[in-house]
Amino acid sequence: MTTYKGIAASDGIAIASAFRLTEPDLSFKKHSIDDPDREIRRFHDAIDISKEELLTIQQRTLEDLGRHEAEVFKAHIAILSDPELLTRIETVIRREHVNAEAALGEVTDSYIKIFNSMTDNDYIRQRSSDINDVTKRVLSHLLGVKLTDPALINRRVIIIAHDLTPSNTAQFVPNYVKGIVSDMGGRTSHSAIMSRTLEIPAVVGFKGSLAEIKNGDTVIVDGLTGNVIVNPRQDEIKQYQDKIKKYRNRKNQLSSFKNQTTTSSDGKHPILAANIGTPDDLTAAIENGAEGIGLFRTEFLYMDSDQLPTEDEQFSAYKDVLQKMKGKPVIMRTADIGGDKDLPYLDTPKEANPFLGYRAIRMSLDRTDIFKVQLRALLRASAFGDLSVMFPMITTINELKRAKNILEQQRQQLISADVAVGHIKIGIMVEVPAAAILADQFANEVDFMSIGTNDLIQYVMAADRGNKRVSYLYQPYNPAVLRLIKSIIDACHENGIPAYMCGEMAGDQTAIPILFGMGLNEFSMSATSILKSRALIKGLDSREMVTLANRTVSLASTSEQVVHYVHQALEAE
Amino acid sequence: MTTYKGIAASDGIAIASAFRLTEPDLSFKKHSIDDPDREIRRFHDAIDISKEELLTIQQRTLEDLGRHEAEVFKAHIAILSDPELLTRIETVIRREHVNAEAALGEVTDSYIKIFNSMTDNDYIRQRSSDINDVTKRVLSHLLGVKLTDPALINRRVIIIAHDLTPSNTAQFVPNYVKGIVSDMGGRTSHSAIMSRTLEIPAVVGFKGSLAEIKNGDTVIVDGLTGNVIVNPRQDEIKQYQDKIKKYRNRKNQLSSFKNQTTTSSDGKHPILAANIGTPDDLTAAIENGAEGIGLFRTEFLYMDSDQLPTEDEQFSAYKDVLQKMKGKPVIMRTADIGGDKDLPYLDTPKEANPFLGYRAIRMSLDRTDIFKVQLRALLRASAFGDLSVMFPMITTINELKRAKNILEQQRQQLISADVAVGHIKIGIMVEVPAAAILADQFANEVDFMSIGTNDLIQYVMAADRGNKRVSYLYQPYNPAVLRLIKSIIDACHENGIPAYMCGEMAGDQTAIPILFGMGLNEFSMSATSILKSRALIKGLDSREMVTLANRTVSLASTSEQVVHYVHQALEAE
Repeated sequence: MTTYKGIAASDGIAIASAFRLTEPDLSFKKHSIDDPDREIRRFHDAIDISKEELLTIQQRTLEDLGRHEAEVFKAHIAILSDPELLTRIETVIRREHVNAEAALGEVTDSYIKIFNSMTDNDYIRQRSSDINDVTKRVLSHLLGVKLTDPALINRRVIIIAHDLTPSNTAQFVPNYVKGIVSDMGGRTSHSAIMSRTLEIPAVVGFKGSLAEIKNGDTVIVDGLTGNVIVNPRQDEIKQYQDKIKKYRNRKNQLSSFKNQTTTSSDGKHPILAANIGTPDDLTAAIENGAEGIGLFRTEFLYMDSDQLPTEDEQFSAYKDVLQKMKGKPVIMRTADIGGDKDLPYLDTPKEANPFLGYRAIRMSLDRTDIFKVQLRALLRASAFGDLSVMFPMITTINELKRAKNILEQQRQQLISADVAVGHIKIGIMVEVPAAAILADQFANEVDFMSIGTNDLIQYVMAADRGNKRVSYLYQPYNPAVLRLIKSIIDACHENGIPAYMCGEMAGDQTAIPILFGMGLNEFSMSATSILKSRALIKGLDSREMVTLANRTVSLASTSEQVVHYVHQALEAE
Repeated sequence: MTTYKGIAASDGIAIASAFRLTEPDLSFKKHSIDDPDREIRRFHDAIDISKEELLTIQQRTLEDLGRHEAEVFKAHIAILSDPELLTRIETVIRREHVNAEAALGEVTDSYIKIFNSMTDNDYIRQRSSDINDVTKRVLSHLLGVKLTDPALINRRVIIIAHDLTPSNTAQFVPNYVKGIVSDMGGRTSHSAIMSRTLEIPAVVGFKGSLAEIKNGDTVIVDGLTGNVIVNPRQDEIKQYQDKIKKYRNRKNQLSSFKNQTTTSSDGKHPILAANIGTPDDLTAAIENGAEGIGLFRTEFLYMDSDQLPTEDEQFSAYKDVLQKMKGKPVIMRTADIGGDKDLPYLDTPKEANPFLGYRAIRMSLDRTDIFKVQLRALLRASAFGDLSVMFPMITTINELKRAKNILEQQRQQLISADVAVGHIKIGIMVEVPAAAILADQFANEVDFMSIGTNDLIQYVMAADRGNKRVSYLYQPYNPAVLRLIKSIIDACHENGIPAYMCGEMAGDQTAIPILFGMGLNEFSMSATSILKSRALIKGLDSREMVTLANRTVSLASTSEQVVHYVHQALEAE
């Protein structure tokens, strides 16, 4: 029995036998060929079969997982249709009289080398990994070697892999793949995100040698702690079976909170809402008892497409969400494009610091053509439910006034054209420190504010949380962050408007007692966090939490002290 | 007569005749060659002559302008010594039997294309422009064409150029080059920085067609307003000659403030200090009557080198500055490496958002081997003057405590070894919002704070000021920025320590009245701003400015309102 550590990437615990997703032997020898034309035909055949395969996988992914997940295969197919890449490979075959495998390897290697040497930019890294993935597929057809096909797994297994490619995960049969262990990746890697989407317990960033896990070994994956136990003793298995039982019981127990309103021990009712990224996420939000949607990220309409979405496409997506929420409040955020969410078809230049760049409302106010279409779609949808609209990355009062003017202008136009328009409440995301510091001035201009902690923390701490070397500075409990949040909430209440939060922090079990004590009116979080948050708040007394909140902002100088104060307060309850 | 507009990039006004720095014809035809070996020899000859030329220019720049300015030519020579580049070009000559010009063009084009397509990262853009510059030089030798040689100018001229390459500016004879007009660049471009170093009036980012300016045209360059007047009428010339006279008078008048202490109309004495980047900058600081050095950027020791500076090299540079300042206070900042200041020899990975990344104290606390060497050099130098040390980019109390512990440990070691160590005051740069918000807690741990506005504003506004699309958000007068600055100054004073500022804002004539009203104790600025700031403060009454400062932070909601309040207050004086 050996216990290894890794990063807990997807909740849950599984016990099953190991299935090593090994790489097939794709090695080849470079040799000269006599007939370049024949070789180029052979190359094109391999490309054609690869594209066909990819189309099938893309289709299956679309049906099983949705548009967003299928997107990567569209990128793969696009690579295999890139005339520059194909021509380069053909040129090498023709000029050097070498076999297609060698030409393919040489050209794609040079792309990957350049990409990897240049930057740690996410977008570029993704392209490099896409090219690698696609090259393997084409090579397998040139060599007549079969890629390991996870679709063929027909028993309960734990997948053991160096890294999971999108093609791999797309082929998983959820009922058979019970757990995942991989070498590569952090909590936000492709493997991790996919395992959460599929609700498969997973440990990534495995600290140890995967080679020591053999096919058929019994493996326990603990996606709650990051533990991986290989060939556990019988008592260990017993112990983990108990843990699995407890985990399921806890899940069942929580489900009893589904149809309750959120109530603290002294009868306060903060609202627990869900953040959603696509209309597909609505099901989970409703199933987990969301009292509203606190953040509908509208970007998916722009990301999962080759072109800008039309007004009608947007209208129908927004209306759909509002109708399904049956009158519960829904806050939609206008497009937060740019930053790490780049739209290839808009052809915006790469930036040295995209998080400090041209994104969200900054782009909307520059590209009012795009902005107006979205606002019209939102206005038309507002007739079908309880809609609030908020603007992301607002930094100055002038930006907010301009955005409001454009919205009002569109509203007037629709009304003149006899289009039905409902009442829309207007708010801003408070995620730029400038807006947070000036919250009292902004409060005069809006119906509500929603604190976007993911970005706010990044800017307050001047640390990109995606950057491993400084991610230790991404501190939601830092007293500076808490002070700023308190001052925003206070500014809202002093001006008679409610304060919401829609960052990860809103669902954080350590942060919730403090935020509740500060008087936050709505907590919007991942659907999967709602029930446990409702259970947590049931045990809180608001007066005790006010004391806790005041202690943290006035006394604490470090995150560690804040966490200590929270533990003290919860123990006293 | 035609008046054009551009960006005022370097102070002063000049009238002289135009000298168009045109590109020579470097076009060539691709053709096949019989003897690749001979062609490769011809290529290597051109490389060798180019390298020799670059060595001469590098040497001359080193003598005339200093190490930092000569650095770029070292980069050019390094490109011409890069075995991968040379081998690639040779391979193309040998494989395709083409002339060296074509092979050179093909290979360098592919580098530049990839660089330009990938990102707008400054570092990459600089490499792309270096390759372009070097390619032209090698081509000129292959083609036997002479590059325009600015060293040959022998009369007073205004240089008209699309862009100025480092090789161009290095060859300028300052007595003949009276002004510069260029198409490219902003205030921080190479052309702009060089023209300020050389004290040549300059307008960059020219809005108009340079082709309309002919050789010999009379041109007025107004580096104060950004105006460029081509073939001015006689009365216009007369008017500008008056302006030149006024500008000189004002300069002379200001020089009377040189040996005065800074005194407001009601007898307050804020300290005006200088920011310096290298020991060379000391001369200008002393000549402009600096009362101390408020920021000595120690990075130059790391940047202008192929390797880490030794303890002795650093000690001697620090000691030199302290001795030349003759007991006046000097604040040295530990190395702020990373971000946009990358050290190739440290081989740190490129980051997606370097301004939110691994830089300054974050790197120092990770690479304590490098940090300790610097601290020992600073401790040893402290015996030779009035030294304060400050840590850049401090974000959390824990970081500050760690840095202080390492400093204390080094101090103890030196004392045990009987090395003379003076008293060092310890401070932090307040440039991360988290430290600004928690200033009261930090104040217990330091002897002073210095507000670094350049970065602080970037983080508060979440806008990279180097990014044209969002530079409108780089707002020093934004009320949010001013509120934060006031809260830092108040926190310092409530805890009995002084508050300093060392960002660009400290020398900003609109900001100074507000900052003076907030009670800022020391303004550290570019040497060239000191005298005019001293003249400005002489006219200010501190009680009026307290009222101004309070109005801006409590009433203003936009930068425009703040500027309006300042104008009102100054008119009332």
